[in-house]
Amino acid sequence: MSTVIDQAKAARAAAIRLATVSEDVRNQALEAMADGIAAASERLIEANRADVADAEKLKEAGELAPELVKRLILNDKKLEGVIASIRSVIALPDPVGHTLDATEISPGLELYKVSVPIGVLGIVFESRPDVVAQVASLCVKSGNAVLMKGGREATRTNRALARVIVQSAARVDGVPEGWLHLLETREEVSEILKLDQYVDLLIPRGGNAFVQHVMNNTNIPVLGHADGVCHVYVDADASAPMAVGVAFDAKTQYVAVCNAMETLLVHEAIADTFLRAAAEPFQEAGVTLRLDERSARILADYPLAEPAEESDWSAEYLDTKLAVKVVDSLQEAIEHINTFGSHHTDSIVTDNDDAARAFLAGVDSASVMHNASTRFADGFRYGLGAEIGIGTGRIHSRGPVGLEGLVIYKYIVKGAGHTVASHTDGGGKVEYTHKPLDRTL
Amino acid sequence: MSTVIDQAKAARAAAIRLATVSEDVRNQALEAMADGIAAASERLIEANRADVADAEKLKEAGELAPELVKRLILNDKKLEGVIASIRSVIALPDPVGHTLDATEISPGLELYKVSVPIGVLGIVFESRPDVVAQVASLCVKSGNAVLMKGGREATRTNRALARVIVQSAARVDGVPEGWLHLLETREEVSEILKLDQYVDLLIPRGGNAFVQHVMNNTNIPVLGHADGVCHVYVDADASAPMAVGVAFDAKTQYVAVCNAMETLLVHEAIADTFLRAAAEPFQEAGVTLRLDERSARILADYPLAEPAEESDWSAEYLDTKLAVKVVDSLQEAIEHINTFGSHHTDSIVTDNDDAARAFLAGVDSASVMHNASTRFADGFRYGLGAEIGIGTGRIHSRGPVGLEGLVIYKYIVKGAGHTVASHTDGGGKVEYTHKPLDRTL
Repeated sequence: MSTVIDQAKAARAAAIRLATVSEDVRNQALEAMADGIAAASERLIEANRADVADAEKLKEAGELAPELVKRLILNDKKLEGVIASIRSVIALPDPVGHTLDATEISPGLELYKVSVPIGVLGIVFESRPDVVAQVASLCVKSGNAVLMKGGREATRTNRALARVIVQSAARVDGVPEGWLHLLETREEVSEILKLDQYVDLLIPRGGNAFVQHVMNNTNIPVLGHADGVCHVYVDADASAPMAVGVAFDAKTQYVAVCNAMETLLVHEAIADTFLRAAAEPFQEAGVTLRLDERSARILADYPLAEPAEESDWSAEYLDTKLAVKVVDSLQEAIEHINTFGSHHTDSIVTDNDDAARAFLAGVDSASVMHNASTRFADGFRYGLGAEIGIGTGRIHSRGPVGLEGLVIYKYIVKGAGHTVASHTDGGGKVEYTHKPLDRTL
Repeated sequence: MSTVIDQAKAARAAAIRLATVSEDVRNQALEAMADGIAAASERLIEANRADVADAEKLKEAGELAPELVKRLILNDKKLEGVIASIRSVIALPDPVGHTLDATEISPGLELYKVSVPIGVLGIVFESRPDVVAQVASLCVKSGNAVLMKGGREATRTNRALARVIVQSAARVDGVPEGWLHLLETREEVSEILKLDQYVDLLIPRGGNAFVQHVMNNTNIPVLGHADGVCHVYVDADASAPMAVGVAFDAKTQYVAVCNAMETLLVHEAIADTFLRAAAEPFQEAGVTLRLDERSARILADYPLAEPAEESDWSAEYLDTKLAVKVVDSLQEAIEHINTFGSHHTDSIVTDNDDAARAFLAGVDSASVMHNASTRFADGFRYGLGAEIGIGTGRIHSRGPVGLEGLVIYKYIVKGAGHTVASHTDGGGKVEYTHKPLDRTL
């Protein structure tokens, strides 16, 4: 059995070849993957049955949450979804080979900035086995090799899926060997973190602690977010009914996700009206409110109330729980968000355009919103076509990241024997022109 | 005296404010900096004289190279250059506030992707004091706060320059306090490396060992290059005179820089003709050739010949020294470059377009060139207007990096109370439209 370092080296070699593969061949490989999964559906479902049986035992022993077992199941319907998702990736525009810029350096010397794959990605995710196919298809589409690891509970399913994907893609002429490697143990993931020579970008998709662990233990750039502490700020000039609608959606539409609201900030001028109006739907939805002193006074009768502590301002509940704070000003809200938030997604509700402008400019988050629910911060909803992850860093890509986050560029210079010595800054006579060129490579 | 962590916190606070400062105010701050330096020239030159006097003593004691003393000197003429360089930054297009993309998510719900400053940069460079002004001006232009450290030999000059810059910029209304901090010790640099909570991007400009040290000791993303092992490959179908011209320029035009050629690869079919033609100019320029067996046989009479060892293929000489290897094929050349090179800049000389295409696609470097000297890989020569550094990573920016490497984007969503629950994927009726919008924010 090959070691992780061998797999990483093979992925690096494959990446260099994959970077030169045409869009047509990459799309053919995706077609082959979709067809291969369809043809192998019985085998895949059988492998999954074994994983699910083990997981059921763990569930009965109280060692695995029921939702995780449910998410693990791969049946005909889910496989149809997997296949449809691969086909939708085929339909996406090619992120590779675009001329982003073209400049004449001097007569006859041309510079092109062209989008290329990043190289080798390391992607680690939790138990949902359909992610194997999703990640594989985004990597093929963008010309990147990948080392991936799924959840332990899905080992047999992931292995069967990866095998079908690799074998199907290999049937297409021009697809290099070794572009996908499935890792199976935590030790292998720890190994990857050290391989900055071979792995260009890590994408950990999972819990807070895991993502933080990855970020703290590698020199490889990481695309991800440890926390999703999102805010809705209800401004003095908000329409109270609109604010209730947005806040309710941001908190309750789906609580277990990173773009759900965790802290609600309310301007003191509207606190009374707004909080009383919001209490009814929140109570119906069973939302526990962690209230600061001022909001506690207003919502003295709220049955699911608890006093907020300092730690609530940076808590990611991922649950029907919400921290609430009354603020004196827009500026206080912005500062609270920049101090306690996670730079993920934050929204202001207001009819005042100046307040909105100040919030959108002053809040230092990947997504900032005006009169909209934080739940919209998502690759599909943003129209990116696919989402590889959500990043809260400030380099390369930020917020929901689609295929464009899996490419970088290279500079291509074409001359006719040009030398610096012949140019003015090298002591020669040729002048730099730096004219934009209206052409692609 | 404030600690590094206080300075980093102050820089983070300043960055959030600086991100909202208009282009007009940022350009006024640059004007004020240029004027301030002009007005303070006597004081600056005096501070510099003290640094230079100390450096002369170190030189006499053999502890500092004569070139370093020369580079340290700040006189009227150099200050004019500094001032002109700040004014040229004013003239550059604003990298901030561009709408990169605009999409209608659904009726009345709009998504804008807008360029914004990265935040807080950590920039460490060697003794040239004019870099203080250059870095400060690029940071102001791009709206980034900065923690910077220059060379120890220039301590007094850097301190005087930084003070003038900060005081001048502060005279402009709207420029926040604390956007520039000058660090003075290595211990402070070590401190910065740990402050990933406050510093968003590190740009180490210096020797190989230092850059590698930074990359290995921080969780903060690093823009830089440890090595510049650049290649020229002379293909079988090259014009020998053109190849001699390109190779000579790439090696000798300026040897002490990262984009100078360090290894010359020659196809065996042209090796005899090309190497004999190249020998004369290389000999005149005093270039020592580290020859592999085959090239040594051809250049048996070359007076400055030495046998190449395995370590030569990854050596960055930064000197009049060149490794030479004869290869059997274009493919061998590409593989050699991808294996031993530093992914910086590599050039093919050939009249064969297929060979050029294969090389440009297959060589995995930030800049790849056809019939041009590697020495062109430079921000000024590429027409970027300014260069903050050269990167060999594969994330965010690559190759020579100008102002566009100092920005990222944020997503801004504008709605009218939109909720996910009202949309199709939330159980409602509103359909996503994902129509491109022809407008800026």
